[in-house]
Amino acid sequence: MSSNSNEAPLGIEARLAREARDLAVKRADPSSAYFAGDAPVRADRRRFVLQSMAALGGTAGVMRNAFAETGVGATVHDVPADASKTPGYPLADESYGTRSQFETEVRRRFKTPTPLSSWTMTPLEAGCGIITPSGLHFERSHAGTAVIDASAHSLYVHGMVREPRKYSMKDLRRFPSISRIMFLECSGNGLTEWSKPTMRTVQFTHGLTSTSEWTGVPLATILKEAGLQRGAKWLLAEGGDAAAMTRSIPLDKAMKDCFLAYGQNGEALRPEQGYPLRLMVPGYEGNINIKWLRRLEVSDTPFMTREETSKYTDLLPDGKAVQFSLAMEAKSVITSPSGEMVLDGPGFHEITGLAWSGRGSIRRVDVSTDGGRTWRAASLQGPVLPICHTRFHFPWTWDGGEAILQSRCVDDTGYVQPTLGQLIAVRGLNGPLGSIYHLNAIQSWLVANDGKVSNVHHY
Amino acid sequence: MSSNSNEAPLGIEARLAREARDLAVKRADPSSAYFAGDAPVRADRRRFVLQSMAALGGTAGVMRNAFAETGVGATVHDVPADASKTPGYPLADESYGTRSQFETEVRRRFKTPTPLSSWTMTPLEAGCGIITPSGLHFERSHAGTAVIDASAHSLYVHGMVREPRKYSMKDLRRFPSISRIMFLECSGNGLTEWSKPTMRTVQFTHGLTSTSEWTGVPLATILKEAGLQRGAKWLLAEGGDAAAMTRSIPLDKAMKDCFLAYGQNGEALRPEQGYPLRLMVPGYEGNINIKWLRRLEVSDTPFMTREETSKYTDLLPDGKAVQFSLAMEAKSVITSPSGEMVLDGPGFHEITGLAWSGRGSIRRVDVSTDGGRTWRAASLQGPVLPICHTRFHFPWTWDGGEAILQSRCVDDTGYVQPTLGQLIAVRGLNGPLGSIYHLNAIQSWLVANDGKVSNVHHY
Repeated sequence: MSSNSNEAPLGIEARLAREARDLAVKRADPSSAYFAGDAPVRADRRRFVLQSMAALGGTAGVMRNAFAETGVGATVHDVPADASKTPGYPLADESYGTRSQFETEVRRRFKTPTPLSSWTMTPLEAGCGIITPSGLHFERSHAGTAVIDASAHSLYVHGMVREPRKYSMKDLRRFPSISRIMFLECSGNGLTEWSKPTMRTVQFTHGLTSTSEWTGVPLATILKEAGLQRGAKWLLAEGGDAAAMTRSIPLDKAMKDCFLAYGQNGEALRPEQGYPLRLMVPGYEGNINIKWLRRLEVSDTPFMTREETSKYTDLLPDGKAVQFSLAMEAKSVITSPSGEMVLDGPGFHEITGLAWSGRGSIRRVDVSTDGGRTWRAASLQGPVLPICHTRFHFPWTWDGGEAILQSRCVDDTGYVQPTLGQLIAVRGLNGPLGSIYHLNAIQSWLVANDGKVSNVHHY
Repeated sequence: MSSNSNEAPLGIEARLAREARDLAVKRADPSSAYFAGDAPVRADRRRFVLQSMAALGGTAGVMRNAFAETGVGATVHDVPADASKTPGYPLADESYGTRSQFETEVRRRFKTPTPLSSWTMTPLEAGCGIITPSGLHFERSHAGTAVIDASAHSLYVHGMVREPRKYSMKDLRRFPSISRIMFLECSGNGLTEWSKPTMRTVQFTHGLTSTSEWTGVPLATILKEAGLQRGAKWLLAEGGDAAAMTRSIPLDKAMKDCFLAYGQNGEALRPEQGYPLRLMVPGYEGNINIKWLRRLEVSDTPFMTREETSKYTDLLPDGKAVQFSLAMEAKSVITSPSGEMVLDGPGFHEITGLAWSGRGSIRRVDVSTDGGRTWRAASLQGPVLPICHTRFHFPWTWDGGEAILQSRCVDDTGYVQPTLGQLIAVRGLNGPLGSIYHLNAIQSWLVANDGKVSNVHHY
């Protein structure tokens, strides 16, 4: 409803009566999109405030940098007793802002044995909307983060082309550009979860996916310039990091929608995302989106690199492995409530989460609060973009009993996100962890009677 | 076009012949979306690489923080001669990433006399896509940036309501949330440019506008909970900063689409954007989007605060002033090429820029390269969202002669961005700078024979 500032008092009165009636209806309706106003407030599910940070601000006038102290990206200021009675800190010329000193518990985290071939995961439980802050975008690299000066970087294009070429970053920025808001997901996302639930939070079960707005040059522009030779069918992309990460891309995909990104969320690509240049392969597993891109070689056959033979293949029940299973199938997860959160009482709780598909757009997301017996449609938050995180919302009134929360998405090809049982029936559990890659099954969160949420398998 | 990796050699051959023909046509066509491949590469128009930063990395193994040194948000690493022969820096647990050390020349900048009532401007010339990095979002505050601990913050709702209420941040996060990718613009954006062109770059002529994805609670949810009394028509919003910034919002607008934001670009609101809570008033001038929000008071009349009487009003030729001219009308600007850039030779240059309207979506953008004599449609990059920056692209082949570049947008209400002459005819130039607020006229950039781009008035 909307009021009109010019309408007569009677109009206002009628409106208020209607509003009171609406509110009463909504309070009585457990599916209402409005929180019942008289219910006590119970849970802050999304963030922790580092009370202790305030204590750091003891010395008047001292500004400290939390990076230097903690590596978590905030400038620390003194905290006045009443901000409305103390001038704030002055705006600075030549500045680049940092996040609040009270929010630094939101961090990328990782669980890997070696620091060079490693990953860090996005704290999805703390996110909102669809954009991932660049500082929290998941990382995966095989020889650390390469340090490359863009002014000295080149991209080579050779192989089955009419004319080999070399481009500086200046050259590439000269071409017409495109931008695309798009998710990336490591195909190893969730690899610990095949056989049993092992991770406690959604950051560790699903945090190898993030969304940014990427900007760059269509790969087709570059390949047309070089000129493809007869019989060309595959493209090798090679990174300039110490792993020299290499993958083969089908040429039809390369010509269709791949692009060479130099921009991320409105600025230059972040170092851990491949600065100064990354190959973007929309909807394909993260690993093939080669970072620190330095070389493209056109061929008539795939190159059978380590990353598409011994790694990044899907072992089947019969002991054979599928290669080049590149597209990330539709997947969704409830990010709140999720593992380790505590609902501190019955009543209204919004269920929200993310859905995505490497094949196209999310068409619908259903939510179950009874372990998959019944499902109801969640609302999708616009814009719903192809190959992009899509946020869903679902109003839920918790009755205080045990509940199992699940989400299930359908993409616009009609593909339905499988249960873990359905996925294991096809893929088997032959590897040391079960399987490894491309786990896109429905996730279950158990809400216990005491409100504690935990990761369970339920299928 | 796309290739098919399974098609017969003849198909490939035919395709390559077609491609060569396409390429030849495109090279001959000055409006081609493809850069002529044999033209020498001339300009990097978007960024500067701080070569000197590399020199800072001289001591092996030492990692320094550029914030501590420069306040510009990058961690500084040693630069190896060949990144593919040296392991990169290891991924860190508990991390929050920073941008590249080679990109730190891209900064917010300002030109104001006092550090507390001040502003900083977004470097639009360096941007890409539509999202503004949160670290580069423009700032405007009247008493510096307030430091507020979210865990101690409250929002009061009172006045002509059934029941006054007080909400903690935890309370507010409990409600159903929405997200919206949306621009903000200070109504003073461009205030130096009414009478004559004074600023050299688009950062200083247009940099008081930025786009983020904002997340929060619909204001209607909160106002319905409090219950509006008969006759209620206006809402006062008050900030918790030392300026106690206050503005009056028509209640119909408040109920229609305003929201209380606690999220920005997927994380908590940035401090300079009002952490922990900001009132979002879609499409209205930046100043009314009250930061550090602490109080909402419902009334039957506007409150006539300083910010809507002596300030933020539009002086007319007859000496009277218009109050509550809140909506930001349609506006566009070419961000590249723009002031101070240098085109280092004739040939292909992509013209790109941003368009936005506080009234709705951008329907079209036209570009002129001859000072407004002829216009051709630019392409709009999707998603085209209401009340959001929309990026446009226009292929241009510069013949080396003097050129005046302009963009003109139309929004979905049919409103056409005016020339400066048209705007001055209505608004006059009575103030010390001419007028002050709501300058949305067409911007002109002069490209000189030597390729240098400068800010001119041409109407």
